[in-house]
Amino acid sequence: MLGVTSPEMVAAISNSGGLGSLPVGGLSPEKTLELIQKTKALTSNPFAVNLFAHDISTVDHIQANNMLDFLEQLGKDNGVSFERPDPSSFQFYSYREQIDILINENIPIVSFTFGVLADEIITRLKQNGKILIGTATCIEEALILKQKNIDAITAQGIEAGGHRGSFITGSLPNVGVMALVPQIVAKTGLPVLASGAITDGKTISAAFALGASAVQIGTAFIASSESLAIPSYKKAVTNYSDTDTMLTKSFSGRWARGIKNSFMEEMEKSGPLIPDYPIQNSLTGAFRTSAQKNDNNQMTNMWAGQSAPKIKRNTSAEIFNEMIAQTEQLLQ
Amino acid sequence: MLGVTSPEMVAAISNSGGLGSLPVGGLSPEKTLELIQKTKALTSNPFAVNLFAHDISTVDHIQANNMLDFLEQLGKDNGVSFERPDPSSFQFYSYREQIDILINENIPIVSFTFGVLADEIITRLKQNGKILIGTATCIEEALILKQKNIDAITAQGIEAGGHRGSFITGSLPNVGVMALVPQIVAKTGLPVLASGAITDGKTISAAFALGASAVQIGTAFIASSESLAIPSYKKAVTNYSDTDTMLTKSFSGRWARGIKNSFMEEMEKSGPLIPDYPIQNSLTGAFRTSAQKNDNNQMTNMWAGQSAPKIKRNTSAEIFNEMIAQTEQLLQ
Repeated sequence: MLGVTSPEMVAAISNSGGLGSLPVGGLSPEKTLELIQKTKALTSNPFAVNLFAHDISTVDHIQANNMLDFLEQLGKDNGVSFERPDPSSFQFYSYREQIDILINENIPIVSFTFGVLADEIITRLKQNGKILIGTATCIEEALILKQKNIDAITAQGIEAGGHRGSFITGSLPNVGVMALVPQIVAKTGLPVLASGAITDGKTISAAFALGASAVQIGTAFIASSESLAIPSYKKAVTNYSDTDTMLTKSFSGRWARGIKNSFMEEMEKSGPLIPDYPIQNSLTGAFRTSAQKNDNNQMTNMWAGQSAPKIKRNTSAEIFNEMIAQTEQLLQ
Repeated sequence: MLGVTSPEMVAAISNSGGLGSLPVGGLSPEKTLELIQKTKALTSNPFAVNLFAHDISTVDHIQANNMLDFLEQLGKDNGVSFERPDPSSFQFYSYREQIDILINENIPIVSFTFGVLADEIITRLKQNGKILIGTATCIEEALILKQKNIDAITAQGIEAGGHRGSFITGSLPNVGVMALVPQIVAKTGLPVLASGAITDGKTISAAFALGASAVQIGTAFIASSESLAIPSYKKAVTNYSDTDTMLTKSFSGRWARGIKNSFMEEMEKSGPLIPDYPIQNSLTGAFRTSAQKNDNNQMTNMWAGQSAPKIKRNTSAEIFNEMIAQTEQLLQ
């Protein structure tokens, strides 16, 4: 959960016996190394590092400037002041630039989303003993990952918060966990991590019943003390209803599920054409940072799944431990 | 599953120890009575009768004639000949006309979808000892059903095949089973029937783990020997992938999930404005009947959920019994 997950959160999960996951998708090599070293200083247990396996698009400057004009007006109307960025200066990083760091830093598990790593990168990571976890939102994507020799698959149901990992062309897959997990298990035979609406012992047990080997949990940790989420986002994410989230491209140019707010509504209603990820993500970057500084949750993204967290505890370790205790009790 | 479920299928399930469900939504009182009596002749066990609790819309004749023009051309292009119906002659039946029959025939369990029964009907059915099951696709709908004193709730996830039971205004809820079931259980405290992608012992066990008291299964029985589905639909429904279904209003005017086919594509691509349910359902009725007579599954609806049936057996009883055996083994 880029922007929410901190090294402290990752370490808390790994220290509690889970597998913490450090998101570095789209970050510079320097920032990637810094976050990995910070996390390693906090835990001697293994953790995963998550990459964005997408291609870089080219900026269409007319489109980009239309979007910036819209954001300037939206900012004026909603008290969000930001310095208009110059799209010519955007610097996009590829996951290719992060691979050396993962190898040098002895990261044992590399997960990725938004696509498939290039063949030569997969080969190199496997030669270095890495376990690879890809993300699939439908059977077809899972079969592509299997064919590429990926070790395990995160089956991301339509319930999940944040960005869709989808990468096949055509309509966005919208498959629920209940349909997705058992079919990916059956069709690939690979270990599957269930993702989407997993919030407590009941949902973890259900995922195991579907044949999952593990679960991937995000939303439940957003309000934790180690989370980087702004206070008004933490508050919103602990108390919302199943229909309060929607899929939107408005923040980043990629479909993602978040709690509905004014930014999404204004962009859907009257916004210009939304550039692809990661361009839109960069275009809205300064705007969102400014909104976050003022704890304005109506003008920045609040990624969240279709289930508000069921366990309300302070630290990530407390949330994690309660989930485990609930699950153990149910599976006894 | 109106159009697929036969009295024989309902009786087979009830005779096997399940609760068969006879769909009579929108049927005339005469047809309703006939189907109930046929089913009673085949089982002495209880079965449920399912009603459509919607309001009747008024036909817009200009809109209706545009749609019929489109269907005539579509039929010509695809070898479907049908007699153009006269929308003035459409007869729509309300569930209100079916209530006396349910009471007189001693039907113990009445389920409904597309809305909530009128208060006086609920009172009357409860006074006559009926157990009422409503359908919810989000928490808000479930809370409305609870407030109306309904006994149990079918939680219909976005995975489910056939018509969405949604009845709140605004965007169509698209909540997955994994998010929907535990939240409706927690918020209402009522017995919940999980619906959507339930196909075998694994998925039944998962639904129970989520707190469901029962499961509602449809797609898994479409290819059974008691099903009224045409042969090419039976064949299609046993072998499709998770992204092969979509939601469409094209057949009935109400959102429903089915296997993608030419009718849906043509209607989405170039069709005129689709009248509301049940008007569109009547407008396409003769067209679909003609396509079905020629076993043409590209020109009629093939409702199906996001999971193709996992158990391939001949009779409904065999499918049911294998599901139960699988579940018992998993829950041991």
